[in-house]
Amino acid sequence: MPIFSHSLRVLFTPDRKLNQSLRNILGFYPSNIALYKSAFRHSSAATLIKDGVKDSNERLEFLGDSVIGTVVADYLFKKFPFKDEGFLTKMRSKMVSRNQHNNIAQKLGLSNFIEANNERKGIPSSINGDAYEALIGAIYLDKGFEFAQKFLLTRIINVHIDMEELVTKEVDFKSKFIEWSQKERKEFRFETVIDGNSSPDKLFTINLIMNEKVIGTAQHFSKKRAEQLAAEVACASLGF
Amino acid sequence: MPIFSHSLRVLFTPDRKLNQSLRNILGFYPSNIALYKSAFRHSSAATLIKDGVKDSNERLEFLGDSVIGTVVADYLFKKFPFKDEGFLTKMRSKMVSRNQHNNIAQKLGLSNFIEANNERKGIPSSINGDAYEALIGAIYLDKGFEFAQKFLLTRIINVHIDMEELVTKEVDFKSKFIEWSQKERKEFRFETVIDGNSSPDKLFTINLIMNEKVIGTAQHFSKKRAEQLAAEVACASLGF
Repeated sequence: MPIFSHSLRVLFTPDRKLNQSLRNILGFYPSNIALYKSAFRHSSAATLIKDGVKDSNERLEFLGDSVIGTVVADYLFKKFPFKDEGFLTKMRSKMVSRNQHNNIAQKLGLSNFIEANNERKGIPSSINGDAYEALIGAIYLDKGFEFAQKFLLTRIINVHIDMEELVTKEVDFKSKFIEWSQKERKEFRFETVIDGNSSPDKLFTINLIMNEKVIGTAQHFSKKRAEQLAAEVACASLGF
Repeated sequence: MPIFSHSLRVLFTPDRKLNQSLRNILGFYPSNIALYKSAFRHSSAATLIKDGVKDSNERLEFLGDSVIGTVVADYLFKKFPFKDEGFLTKMRSKMVSRNQHNNIAQKLGLSNFIEANNERKGIPSSINGDAYEALIGAIYLDKGFEFAQKFLLTRIINVHIDMEELVTKEVDFKSKFIEWSQKERKEFRFETVIDGNSSPDKLFTINLIMNEKVIGTAQHFSKKRAEQLAAEVACASLGF
């Protein structure tokens, strides 16, 4: 039988500070602190544990990403009883975008917890958002689905996500395309075929070019909007 | 205060037979039978309820698909503690493929429950798998995450999914590509550029053509295998 209760015991361990800091940002004390340590360990700071697998946060990120997706699906299902599944799918992709997760991570101050090795190359800009996803994976394993769900609803969605803005916001296809091309390490460029300032009808014609092939083209009075539309065409032909 | 308990009450309702049939295949009595009725209603048999939204199973399918993904992610995370997230992601996509869900639906006998209107066009081959996903959405809403999780583990994954086979099975890129092209209504063809039977090195060269452009090409001694490889190239260039 343990002499001390859990919360008393951590007062005497080296994890005391981490426990307290997590309590401050999460609103609860972790039960299994090791899970949270893993969640904040970027692969650049990880060591091999077995068969080529590292003790980084990538497995927890895989799990957390899925848990967030389900909690958001449930939330949208109940919030919008008269919207079809196309709307729900679109809203979910806005709510769980990489950009959104990076913002949430920043608001929670997760970068203070992240363990990474800056000397090594290849630390992606998504390191904070990835740690956020891994953190949700850790909470899910530590406390169960309903606890993680309550945490996401009360501490994240209701506080950090502006639903009204998301409902009206157009999908940003240019960012979506750029994000994909960076992940896939593809080079691309937007080419102004016709400059609206010097054309009689004032329309810009923009080509989006990848591997020297035009994968999207669009016309608009605004150059920015033409780029968005060309990216939308490209996204559609790429199947997303 | 209700005079009868829930299970007594359903004995006297017109839903009695459905309740009993569901008990037989699911192993429990539904609490909210309306959810299960929705889960089995294909959009061809649905009616408009409000603002262009139908009372079909598509919203539940959206939710159930996500719940299955999370339960499978958790299952794989725990079953394979020394596999990286790339392996987990690949295994999950095999476990939750459309093909897999259609098979599960067939084994559960779900087609007997599905309400569809055959006179209308456009009933897809995935109608059974879609109803299975919607059914999981209904169980989740009716009984909660942990109940749905237990159902999936004990009645589906442990019974109907051959994990050993899935671990060793290659990803079927040809099916994956065909599935995608049908969803996106794209036409394509595999073209035999060089017939191995009549070529000196016995290699088949296969092109996969979409919109009159070669989107994948491959060589192999087996024509079937060359098609698979060409589809893999196409899938990679499409970003999945």
